[in-house]
Amino acid sequence: MTQPRTIAITGAGGLIGDLLEEHLAGRYDVRPLTRDDADVTDLDALLTAFDGVDAVVHLAATSDVESPWEPVLAANVIGVYNVYEAARRTGVGRVVFASSNHAVGMYQWDDAYFPDGEGPKIVPADAPVRPDSLYGASKVWGEALGRYYVERLEALSVICLRIGWVTEHDEPPTPLHAARKEIQHVRDRGPGMWLSQRDCMTLLEAALRTDERYAIVYGVSDNTGRWLSLEEGERLLGWRPQDGHRP
Amino acid sequence: MTQPRTIAITGAGGLIGDLLEEHLAGRYDVRPLTRDDADVTDLDALLTAFDGVDAVVHLAATSDVESPWEPVLAANVIGVYNVYEAARRTGVGRVVFASSNHAVGMYQWDDAYFPDGEGPKIVPADAPVRPDSLYGASKVWGEALGRYYVERLEALSVICLRIGWVTEHDEPPTPLHAARKEIQHVRDRGPGMWLSQRDCMTLLEAALRTDERYAIVYGVSDNTGRWLSLEEGERLLGWRPQDGHRP
Repeated sequence: MTQPRTIAITGAGGLIGDLLEEHLAGRYDVRPLTRDDADVTDLDALLTAFDGVDAVVHLAATSDVESPWEPVLAANVIGVYNVYEAARRTGVGRVVFASSNHAVGMYQWDDAYFPDGEGPKIVPADAPVRPDSLYGASKVWGEALGRYYVERLEALSVICLRIGWVTEHDEPPTPLHAARKEIQHVRDRGPGMWLSQRDCMTLLEAALRTDERYAIVYGVSDNTGRWLSLEEGERLLGWRPQDGHRP
Repeated sequence: MTQPRTIAITGAGGLIGDLLEEHLAGRYDVRPLTRDDADVTDLDALLTAFDGVDAVVHLAATSDVESPWEPVLAANVIGVYNVYEAARRTGVGRVVFASSNHAVGMYQWDDAYFPDGEGPKIVPADAPVRPDSLYGASKVWGEALGRYYVERLEALSVICLRIGWVTEHDEPPTPLHAARKEIQHVRDRGPGMWLSQRDCMTLLEAALRTDERYAIVYGVSDNTGRWLSLEEGERLLGWRPQDGHRP
């Protein structure tokens, strides 16, 4: 595809949105959109905000994995529909959709994938979805809906990134951080899902630039204990993580 | 699981709902629910309607594949959440979810699956979803959300049936019926998706009675030109179609 020049970011002001704005600055015309600029629950606001945009990085969502139904419905389920629909109507060529490891989070709870004394089994990107939350289910919805816009409407390209665990301090989760998590599986197996800020930025840019029309790939650094596949990211986006948590 | 005795049917009054009510009558305590009895967009109404119910067959939805967003959002996306959540809160053990072949409808548009001079390639139930409509995407959502209720909340059993093409006259789609469809792929390949009324009833009853906790299976008769797998239905539900369109 033609390489994008003007890139809108929904969820600007969040951790990844801020990092991406800085990462793209000077090389692209970046249009950061906070909720005040264009709430994703407001289709009309998005139609205005996407005017003249080549690609949208859709990060806006309830970011709390344990979010209850009402915010998941509004910000995630309705929000991603509005983003695709506004992109279609305004002629935006591509949406990079911030999906999540939580679309397949229940593999992390499945002892069959974490055999004693060896590394975990790797979950490929086309494995059956197993959401661990309403949040995770809403990401499956966004992936499926995006594929409809790509394949049936032929109106967009959509690249879905199942992003792992990006931390504010940009360090791998330590036992101390992980210990805050009350759930055993998250504590033990979560660190394998770390995504360094640098790897997150190269992944997002690769998703903006690929010739693929539709893809689902995992965004995790090459950590010890990693259980999500890196194969699709390399094959479809030409992306490989540079970092890895190796305790 | 304990076999269900009291079975609620959402979408009673529709074609499949009416047939199912008749099929189960006398052998189960059947509670047919029309929109007037309990609208699936109304969680409180479902809480009342599901009281004392062992299993729900969730058929209520916009049935028009080309439905626009608003009815899909209300009846399908929010509706299936309300059904699972009401089932969880009232202690209903199982929901049989009427999913659809439209969750994977784009395979029907893909010439690679319909090679010249031989039968179509068979799409297994765990193939990546490829919805052909907002309706189809809403069915993917219902399947994923159901898995969350089963695996993470351990609150329900959910059996997802990707139902094919059930006709009012209960005859395989003829060229005349198919010709009404404006889209070439539907005209040529749709008849392979016929599901006889008899096969539909045995499938729904098998889904009510299986010991599986979660499953996705196709509901199509054993037609010439069939492109959806029957393997999962036989393996997981012990169900085989008795009919088939053999022109």
